Amino acid sequence: MKNLERHLTLLCDFYQLTMARGYFHTDFRDRYAYFDVFFRKIPDEGGFAICAGLEQIVDYIKNLYFDESDIDYLRSKGIFDKEFLDYLKDFRFRGDIWAIPEGTVIFPGEPVITVRAKAIEAQFIETFLLLTFNHESLVATKASRIVRAAEGRPVSEFGSRRAHNADAAIYGARAAYIAGCGGSACTIADKEFGVPAGGTMAHSWIQIFDSEYEAFDTYCKLYPNKPTLLVDTYNVLTSGIPNAIRAFKANGITECAVRLDSGDITYLTKKCRAMLDEAGLTKCGIVVSNSLDEYIIRDILRQGACIDSFGVGERLITSKSEPVFGGVYKLCAVEDKNGVITPKIKISENTVKITNPGFKNVYRLYSNESNKAEADLITLRDEDIDFTKPLEIFDPDYTWKRKLMENYHARELMKQIFKDGKCVYECPNIEEIRRYCASEIESLWDEVLRFDNPHNYYVDLSQKLWDLKHSMLNKKLGKN
Amino acid sequence: MKNLERHLTLLCDFYQLTMARGYFHTDFRDRYAYFDVFFRKIPDEGGFAICAGLEQIVDYIKNLYFDESDIDYLRSKGIFDKEFLDYLKDFRFRGDIWAIPEGTVIFPGEPVITVRAKAIEAQFIETFLLLTFNHESLVATKASRIVRAAEGRPVSEFGSRRAHNADAAIYGARAAYIAGCGGSACTIADKEFGVPAGGTMAHSWIQIFDSEYEAFDTYCKLYPNKPTLLVDTYNVLTSGIPNAIRAFKANGITECAVRLDSGDITYLTKKCRAMLDEAGLTKCGIVVSNSLDEYIIRDILRQGACIDSFGVGERLITSKSEPVFGGVYKLCAVEDKNGVITPKIKISENTVKITNPGFKNVYRLYSNESNKAEADLITLRDEDIDFTKPLEIFDPDYTWKRKLMENYHARELMKQIFKDGKCVYECPNIEEIRRYCASEIESLWDEVLRFDNPHNYYVDLSQKLWDLKHSMLNKKLGKN
Repeated sequence: MKNLERHLTLLCDFYQLTMARGYFHTDFRDRYAYFDVFFRKIPDEGGFAICAGLEQIVDYIKNLYFDESDIDYLRSKGIFDKEFLDYLKDFRFRGDIWAIPEGTVIFPGEPVITVRAKAIEAQFIETFLLLTFNHESLVATKASRIVRAAEGRPVSEFGSRRAHNADAAIYGARAAYIAGCGGSACTIADKEFGVPAGGTMAHSWIQIFDSEYEAFDTYCKLYPNKPTLLVDTYNVLTSGIPNAIRAFKANGITECAVRLDSGDITYLTKKCRAMLDEAGLTKCGIVVSNSLDEYIIRDILRQGACIDSFGVGERLITSKSEPVFGGVYKLCAVEDKNGVITPKIKISENTVKITNPGFKNVYRLYSNESNKAEADLITLRDEDIDFTKPLEIFDPDYTWKRKLMENYHARELMKQIFKDGKCVYECPNIEEIRRYCASEIESLWDEVLRFDNPHNYYVDLSQKLWDLKHSMLNKKLGKN
Repeated sequence: MKNLERHLTLLCDFYQLTMARGYFHTDFRDRYAYFDVFFRKIPDEGGFAICAGLEQIVDYIKNLYFDESDIDYLRSKGIFDKEFLDYLKDFRFRGDIWAIPEGTVIFPGEPVITVRAKAIEAQFIETFLLLTFNHESLVATKASRIVRAAEGRPVSEFGSRRAHNADAAIYGARAAYIAGCGGSACTIADKEFGVPAGGTMAHSWIQIFDSEYEAFDTYCKLYPNKPTLLVDTYNVLTSGIPNAIRAFKANGITECAVRLDSGDITYLTKKCRAMLDEAGLTKCGIVVSNSLDEYIIRDILRQGACIDSFGVGERLITSKSEPVFGGVYKLCAVEDKNGVITPKIKISENTVKITNPGFKNVYRLYSNESNKAEADLITLRDEDIDFTKPLEIFDPDYTWKRKLMENYHARELMKQIFKDGKCVYECPNIEEIRRYCASEIESLWDEVLRFDNPHNYYVDLSQKLWDLKHSMLNKKLGKN
C-alpha cells in the first residue's frame, strides 16, 4: 500500500490535543484509561451492521508519531508548552487494543473496539478510529443490503465519482467487496487491495464515434472476450440493441452483455431479453445501473425485470438513504497505579445514550441445533461464565423478558490486536474477510436479515454487568 | 501539503483504461476531445451551489503519471498490450483546462470545468475530477446553508468522526471554511490549509476526574484564556452550569463559554443564559452542538434560544439530508486534425439529461443598479457578444419567456487553469477564496438565497447555442 501512505497523525479533533496537554500536566499523565467504540443505531432500520476498517486502523496505530512539522505547527498555536511538545516527539501508541474482526455482524451497544492505554494515548486516537470504523462499516452494511436484494446476481460497486473524495472511493470499494459485492470500478482498490476491478465503456465512447454501430464494432474487435456494450446512448430498443446484436454477430461473439444506464429498467430489460433471445444471443447478459439501491432492485426483480447483474453507484458509496454510521468512543474505566480498574459510566436523560461501564467482553451465543446466532452477551472481562451449562439471559431494559439458553455454544467476538503497542494480530486478506462475512450473514435467522421491520436481535448484559451498571446509575443520581 | 501526498493515478474507473486502450488503437489516438463538468440539481432544493475542489484537481493533474507498479498492475490484468503500456509510461496530461474558481456560486447546467485534450487524456481524468468536485462542492454548499441559518453566529465544523474517511474529514473541513464556517475541529486541515482549528474537551475529560468540578477547575487552570466548559455530562442545570460558574469564579475568569451537546437546546440555553447572567458571567458565551443542521438552527433561533455559536458535525460533513452532488462529465465536442471543432450532444428521453453541445463559455450578468446577479448566459466560445449593448435573453425551454437586459455588465466565469499541460493558474489562498465566496453570496438576491422554494435563477443559452442544440436534437431523431 505504498501509494496510499500518508502521515495523518494530526487527523484528530483539536480537543484531543488540548486534553492531552491537560492529562500530561495532571495525575492522569501515567494513568490507564479504557475506551469502547460502539454504535447505537443500525442504518436504514436494518437488523444488523457489518464492521469494517480494522486494517486501516492497524496501519494508523503502527504509524502514529509526531513529525517535526507537526510539532512546529502545534508550537505555532501558542498554547502547548515546551515540556509537552518534547513529550510528543517521543509519542507512540503503547497500549492494548481488542477488536471484533472485519466482516463480523455487529449490533448496537456492544463494544466493537476496546482501547486500554495511558489516557493521553487512548484519547488521542479517537477521531481516526471513529471515522475509519464509521465510514467502512457504513458502506459494508449498505452493500450487504444491496447484495441481498440482488438475490444472487452479482453487484458491482460503481460509485467512485460520487464518493466523498478519494478515500471514500477507495476504502468504500474495499468495504463493499468485503460485504459481498463482486467487484468495483475503482481501479486502485484492485491494485492496492485486490478488489476485482472491471468496467467497459462510458457514453462518451459511443458519442465520439460517428455512429453507435461503429463504436460497438470497434469495441468488440478490441475486447472480443465477453464485451459489454452500453446500449442507451440514443435509444435502447430502436438503436442500442439492434446495433449491439449486429456488432456481436459481425464479430462472432456469443458470450457478451449489454448495459442499460437509464429508462424504465423493468420494461426495457424484458424487451431487450426478448430481442437478444430472438437473435440467438441467449448467453448475452443484461447489466443495469442508474441510481439503484436495495429497494429499487427488489422492486424491479419482483416485476420480473430480466437482469443478470447490477452496477450500483451513488446510493451504495454514500449510503445515501442514511449516510451516517453513528459509532462513538466512550470512556468505560480507569486503572490506578496498582492495576485496580474503576468502571466509569456516562449517564444521559436520553437512556439510549447511557453507556455500559467497565472493561468488557462480548460473546455470541449460537444454537447447536440450527447453528444460528441467538443472542450476544456483554460481560465484564473478569467474569468466568460457564458456557457449557444452561444460561439464563435477560433483556437489560425489560428484565422480566428472560430466555434460558440450552444446547448452545458461545464464541468470543473480540480479538487482541495490540499488546503494549505491538501489533499481535495479522489482518486476514480480503478474500478471507469476504468469505467470513458471508458466513456471518449465513449465521443469522431470516427474521434478522429481512429489510422491513426485522427482529430485534438480543444484546444482553451479564447479571454482573447489569448489577454494576444499575448500582452506578443509582449512585450517580444527585451527586457530582 | 507534503503529508497528504499520495500517488492516485489509478484512482479511476476501470473503463477509463479500457477506453484509453481503445482510443490508442483507433483514429482517436491523437484526436482532441472536449468534456464539460456540470451538475443538474442543487442539493436540498436550494437556490444555488458553491463550487470547490479546484486546488485538489490542479494538484492531481500536475502529478498524473503511471509509475512502475501501476504498469505492472495493468500488465497483470492481461488485456493491455505492450504498445499501450509503453505509451502509458510517458503519459501526462498535456491538454487545456478551464474552470470556474473555487467559492463561486454555480447553477445547474452550466459548465464548471471544461477539458480540451487528446481523447485518452481527457477521458482518463474523469473520475478524479468528478469525485473531487462533487465532494467538496457538496460540503461547501451545505455549509453555506448552515452558516446562513446561524445568522451571523460563528459555526464550527465538528464532523471529522462521522466523515466518509480521512479525505472527507480533511477536504470537507476546507470546503466548509471556504463556505463561511469559522473553523473546524480537524487539526490537520489547519496545519495543511490554514482552516482555524479549535476545540476544548470531550465528555471523557469530565468523566475521568472524580468530580465534574475538579475537571472544570483543572481545565480553567490549564487554559485560562477563554475556556469553554462542556456542561452536559451529568445534568446541565443542576450540575454543569453551577460547577462551571464556580470554576470560572474560582479562577477569576470572565471571558469564557459553556457548551451543550444534548437535550432541549432552546429550553436549556435560556435557562443557562439566565443562570450565567445572574452570576455576573454576562460575557460567558453559549456554544451548542448535537446533530444540528440549517433547519434545526433556524427553528431554535426562532424559539429564542440563547446561543452565541454553533458546532455542527455529521449533518454538515456528510450533507446528511442529501449526500450526493451529482456532477457529471460529458463529451461536448471533438476536434479534427485541422482544428475544426464538431459539437457532440448526449440525448435522452429524460430531457434534463440532454447536454449542451460545443466548446462553451459562461457569463454572469449583473444589474448595474443593484450589483446583483440577474442571470447566467452560456455561449459558444467563438461567439462575440457585445455586452455593452442591451441583450435579450430567453428561457431555453419556454422560449417565449424573455427578458431584456439593460444597464448591466457581464463577467466571464471560467478561467484557464492548464494550457498544453502547464498550469497557468495560481490557486488563491484559502482566506481569499473564503472572502470571494462571501462576496459571491452577497451578489445574490434574497429570493435566490432563501431555503424554501427559492427563485429559479436564470441559466440561459445564447441564441447561437440554442440554435445549434436544437438543430442537433432534430437531426439525431431517427438516425444513429
